[in-house]
Amino acid sequence: MDGSTLASWNDGAAKDAIVEFLVESGAEGSPSYIPEADRIAAFDNDGTLWCEQPAPVQTGLLLGKLIEQVRSDPSLAMEEPYKAIVNQDPAFLGALARQEPDAVLAFLKGVGKAWEGATPEEYEAEVRAFLAASRHDRFGRPFPELVYQPMLELFDLLRAHGWRLFICSGGGRDFVRVFSEETFGIRREHVIGSAPEWAYEDGRLIRRNELHGNLALGPGKPEHIYARTGRMALFAAGNGDVDLEMLEVARFALVIVHDDAEREYATTAAAERLLEAADAGDWVTVSMKDDWKTVFTKRE
Amino acid sequence: MDGSTLASWNDGAAKDAIVEFLVESGAEGSPSYIPEADRIAAFDNDGTLWCEQPAPVQTGLLLGKLIEQVRSDPSLAMEEPYKAIVNQDPAFLGALARQEPDAVLAFLKGVGKAWEGATPEEYEAEVRAFLAASRHDRFGRPFPELVYQPMLELFDLLRAHGWRLFICSGGGRDFVRVFSEETFGIRREHVIGSAPEWAYEDGRLIRRNELHGNLALGPGKPEHIYARTGRMALFAAGNGDVDLEMLEVARFALVIVHDDAEREYATTAAAERLLEAADAGDWVTVSMKDDWKTVFTKRE
Repeated sequence: MDGSTLASWNDGAAKDAIVEFLVESGAEGSPSYIPEADRIAAFDNDGTLWCEQPAPVQTGLLLGKLIEQVRSDPSLAMEEPYKAIVNQDPAFLGALARQEPDAVLAFLKGVGKAWEGATPEEYEAEVRAFLAASRHDRFGRPFPELVYQPMLELFDLLRAHGWRLFICSGGGRDFVRVFSEETFGIRREHVIGSAPEWAYEDGRLIRRNELHGNLALGPGKPEHIYARTGRMALFAAGNGDVDLEMLEVARFALVIVHDDAEREYATTAAAERLLEAADAGDWVTVSMKDDWKTVFTKRE
Repeated sequence: MDGSTLASWNDGAAKDAIVEFLVESGAEGSPSYIPEADRIAAFDNDGTLWCEQPAPVQTGLLLGKLIEQVRSDPSLAMEEPYKAIVNQDPAFLGALARQEPDAVLAFLKGVGKAWEGATPEEYEAEVRAFLAASRHDRFGRPFPELVYQPMLELFDLLRAHGWRLFICSGGGRDFVRVFSEETFGIRREHVIGSAPEWAYEDGRLIRRNELHGNLALGPGKPEHIYARTGRMALFAAGNGDVDLEMLEVARFALVIVHDDAEREYATTAAAERLLEAADAGDWVTVSMKDDWKTVFTKRE
């Protein structure tokens, strides 16, 4: 295995480190050998697998939904989080874009209310309609076309080495599941993330206005991964501070650095602690600018 | 596919129905065709995959743990559930054996307290020690040898038809995960069940005295299956009333009937509603006595 399948990756330290880890961890007798049962890899979604600038994709769906709620019940405009949204409060929207848990939780109060009582089919239909209708402001493409080609190649390489891949999104588990199979080639049951409770009543599932456990942010990421898989992910990739704990427990930690203003974005916002930890912990950093020949999957 | 791989199954209606369903659901163009992505099968554990008489295996571990707690703190003997356990209260132990949610919840209060603060490694070591030391009263064998051979063959057949298999246990998810890979050939991440919350603190997971969502009993089964997989299980197998809702939403529902006093047990306790539903709903019932050539995996 010479890593030739990472076709969109430039030769360099990041690619070398990945290939070396996969070879070593797959070699019985090697001190770094990892039994096949333990080969679980977890990937953050927004900013790690697809573009999350200027805001995570899901934010558009949720904001639209809450604004719709205010339209049908104008009295909501006096309450949070609706008030901040209607007024486009930059502090609130900024905190939300950075996935700060307090802002996310406030936001989710509205979200939980908006979809309370929905069936899975109803929720999924709204996600599909949103994805079909939405275009990225700058790139003019549907969001599922802003997936990082090099990460899909990394998926293939990991699979070839017997790794089982999971997405662990701080955003909505059920949101990502709607497109994970066609977009990332990842089965729904391999998508982990923040999620509502669903109650089984009268022969069908109904969405409840309640979170299923913690948010999958920060410490919530290893918690969700363990709950779902019974293991820690020994290979993990992320790009933001909310991925820190997930990377901390991994044997191989990969950090995507957004330093490519031309082809994507150059920003370290909400990744400051992560980049520090990457330095201190000898983690592997990926420069989008230098390590990737291609950024997006299609029509580039 | 002629079902010849179900070697421990006698020819008959149950075997025919299974084979027919797998062939039809796998045939593109058939009105019963199920796309591969949707081929999710869920199996109850106790009484469906291994012997649960005279009580579910895990009960022994939990009772032992609670009695140990009382030994180190005798004042507990005045409180429930310890009091009922120390006094061997038959009403309580009976309700527990039938997995009645109230008894299970009362019991779990003690269980939650007993393992509060444990790490996954500590908990797993206790499960392994219990399984290594315990023998079934009547059969004199370790519990992992009381697995139903015909069900393992059914696993193989389902896999050969592109189905992804999940265990959905009303008992402890983390308990079953300790042995699911060696005993059932089912990866930990394919084990669903009732579970505690685990908190990530100071770089490690710690067990909390709190349930993760509902118990995976009754309506909790489809709820847990959807939370874990993003789908409903279209093939489902169970043997007790607590499996009713899981079977209700399946396209193919298989009911294991314990009618073999000689080789296993003959009892319909806590399966009365299920057997009625099986009749009414045209579900497929498996008579252990008539449909299975062999019951257990080893040394029979």
